Amino acid sequence: MSLNNNKPVLPQSKKLTLGLFGFGVVGKGLYDVLHSTPALQASIKKICIRNADKKRVIPQEHFTTDANELLHDESINVIVELIDDADAAYNIVKAALQKGKAVVSANKKMIAAHFEELLHLQHIHGAALLYEGACCASIPIIRNLEEYYDNDLLSAVKGIVNGSTNYILTKIFDDGLSFKDALLQAQQLGFAESNPALDIEGHDAANKLSILLAHAFGRIAAPSEFLYTGITSIKKTDADLAKQKNLKIKLVATAQKINDSQIAAFVLPQFVEEQDELAGVSNEFNALITESSFADKHFFKGKGAGAYPTAAAVLSDIAALRYNYKYEYKKYLQENTPELSNDYYLKIFVSADDIEKIDKDQFAWIEEWHNEKNNNWVVGIIQSALLQQNNWWKQPGVSLILTKNPVVQNVEYREIGKKSLELAGVI
Amino acid sequence: MSLNNNKPVLPQSKKLTLGLFGFGVVGKGLYDVLHSTPALQASIKKICIRNADKKRVIPQEHFTTDANELLHDESINVIVELIDDADAAYNIVKAALQKGKAVVSANKKMIAAHFEELLHLQHIHGAALLYEGACCASIPIIRNLEEYYDNDLLSAVKGIVNGSTNYILTKIFDDGLSFKDALLQAQQLGFAESNPALDIEGHDAANKLSILLAHAFGRIAAPSEFLYTGITSIKKTDADLAKQKNLKIKLVATAQKINDSQIAAFVLPQFVEEQDELAGVSNEFNALITESSFADKHFFKGKGAGAYPTAAAVLSDIAALRYNYKYEYKKYLQENTPELSNDYYLKIFVSADDIEKIDKDQFAWIEEWHNEKNNNWVVGIIQSALLQQNNWWKQPGVSLILTKNPVVQNVEYREIGKKSLELAGVI
Repeated sequence: MSLNNNKPVLPQSKKLTLGLFGFGVVGKGLYDVLHSTPALQASIKKICIRNADKKRVIPQEHFTTDANELLHDESINVIVELIDDADAAYNIVKAALQKGKAVVSANKKMIAAHFEELLHLQHIHGAALLYEGACCASIPIIRNLEEYYDNDLLSAVKGIVNGSTNYILTKIFDDGLSFKDALLQAQQLGFAESNPALDIEGHDAANKLSILLAHAFGRIAAPSEFLYTGITSIKKTDADLAKQKNLKIKLVATAQKINDSQIAAFVLPQFVEEQDELAGVSNEFNALITESSFADKHFFKGKGAGAYPTAAAVLSDIAALRYNYKYEYKKYLQENTPELSNDYYLKIFVSADDIEKIDKDQFAWIEEWHNEKNNNWVVGIIQSALLQQNNWWKQPGVSLILTKNPVVQNVEYREIGKKSLELAGVI
Repeated sequence: MSLNNNKPVLPQSKKLTLGLFGFGVVGKGLYDVLHSTPALQASIKKICIRNADKKRVIPQEHFTTDANELLHDESINVIVELIDDADAAYNIVKAALQKGKAVVSANKKMIAAHFEELLHLQHIHGAALLYEGACCASIPIIRNLEEYYDNDLLSAVKGIVNGSTNYILTKIFDDGLSFKDALLQAQQLGFAESNPALDIEGHDAANKLSILLAHAFGRIAAPSEFLYTGITSIKKTDADLAKQKNLKIKLVATAQKINDSQIAAFVLPQFVEEQDELAGVSNEFNALITESSFADKHFFKGKGAGAYPTAAAVLSDIAALRYNYKYEYKKYLQENTPELSNDYYLKIFVSADDIEKIDKDQFAWIEEWHNEKNNNWVVGIIQSALLQQNNWWKQPGVSLILTKNPVVQNVEYREIGKKSLELAGVI
């Protein structure tokens, strides 16, 4: 055959005219990235900012403080939302979708909080909302969950999804920094949310797990529906113990099928062994492991925080809009979507400055018991529902860290729990 | 808003009726996988095999030896080609595309050999050909190159793309097996091609690099157009030296932009440091690293050989066909696709049982020179074109192993080469 006849041509792609909300680190990053990719044929027409008086690196005429100047501009067909304030972001995204404009956002909090409504708004107005940058910044996880793991074989998604806390943990463990100094460094490098509590108390990771749950398993769940915490409670004695046992402590988000119709989901600190892939994920890097019956384990690693990695994901979404890409939410729209369960057991380590703070009666099984002045700890099995319903493990001076492979499904623990406590000499 | 009005529904997906060619390990794997995913709504109508007399695990009526029974069956809308013979595979795929049937294949040799024609056949007949399983088995790299790295920011793709050689190298390095025993194990476990020369001489990895080049950079190039070799020449003395220096030897495929319009591409053994991500890729695992200006490095790891991992990728392609997914080959169709270059320099290690076998005059710079009975080696810089044009380094007793970050772009070496040899006391 002659290859010159009928040579394929590139499908005509949409010319994109962007309206950008926010010009913080990611917004500026996107501006730089766009200027390095002329082939993309996307240009920023106007940038809406909150503070008109702030000095900017580009001329003043690019900016406005009036959102409507972007939303009502017919020539703008894509709104890129990169502001911090989740409520303001929600109003912008909603208004843009209602006007039929495509939207790219990296606001995990806003997306996790309004997931179902945003999905319906896309459907009603026929406009796409893409948010690859909202989950693990530059790692293309949402698109892979949507496109590649598009079947019922996926059994788990877990990993390190918050760059700021991972940076802090790395600096504490590897460089011996104090929590405070490590946090300060993360903030200076632009890895931390402007409100650091979002990172260090686990809210940001929980928002990302919420987004992962929807795309991995079709289950829409707000962070309040599952178990999560951050890294603020991790004590020096915990870090010392981990080092002594050649373990690292990582904040790990997990969504794991426990049977055909139920998922366990949680974000908790976890001990990881040195040879575990997650142990090698340092600083602001994020990583995800997918597990499926036949493909087995896949490991994805990339920068999970910072202006450019997030901007790169936003850019990739913008590029996809040229070809009218949108998430199809197939798993959510399928029947028999698995439910979140809180009837599974977790094998945990709990340490406390005062032994009385550990509510040992809640354990179904206690495997180890260490009682030393100012350094008391227990390794045992506990029902997840009891952790979700009670706050004793969130008291100051108490830290909870998951063990390796923490999900225990053996329901016999229900019966033998008391007996184990007797055996342990605890009751 | 009420979420019950206008509830989105799952887009109607195509019912797929499959005709399967080949029932070897991957074919059988796919059969198993399909029976575990009823939600996919894809069924195998007929399986074409070469040998009708072979005993099969499923009833005889599923099989035929007549290809036309599948190709002429109007009810079969997807041909899944999983046979070994690349020429026969090509004829099947071509005939299927000409009949407007979608095709899924995992035959890297066939795809690399006929890339451009297969692309045009898809265009002319409006039928999709998907082949995720042809490159790193279960790792979703082709789809990510097509969809996520869809811009001009990608600067390199490199990694371990052949599971069989990686298995052999792991067994030699970690378990002290002989090459022969390690190869035998790989074959017994179903990781090796039926003709092991395809793996161990680097042809399979080169075919995969050829496919990666097309999807990463839009450059279609047959393996004969770039530098490649396998692992057969690696000697015990090389392995000992590597161990002594805390290095591992991996067969690494690299496609790397050397400037805006040129790419360096090669598959060669390479020393990797222990802390390098590729050093942690063991046994039949594959891994790829993408490098781009803003997203920085991404690391993907997964099983790169074996029946189920390949079948999982094939399944994912089948699932994508329900929604009429096809590769768009955007980078190939764009103007100004970068060319392959052979005018770059590589920093290499070459060892030989006889020093005379090392053609030292070809080096532009010699950094180290080790001369010992039966163990002679050189570390130096050489122009890639000279390696491509000459075969001295492919003689028995000679092995070539790349150093870390082997691509050297400093053209000054052209001038100073001779001088360096003088300084080294070699000439």
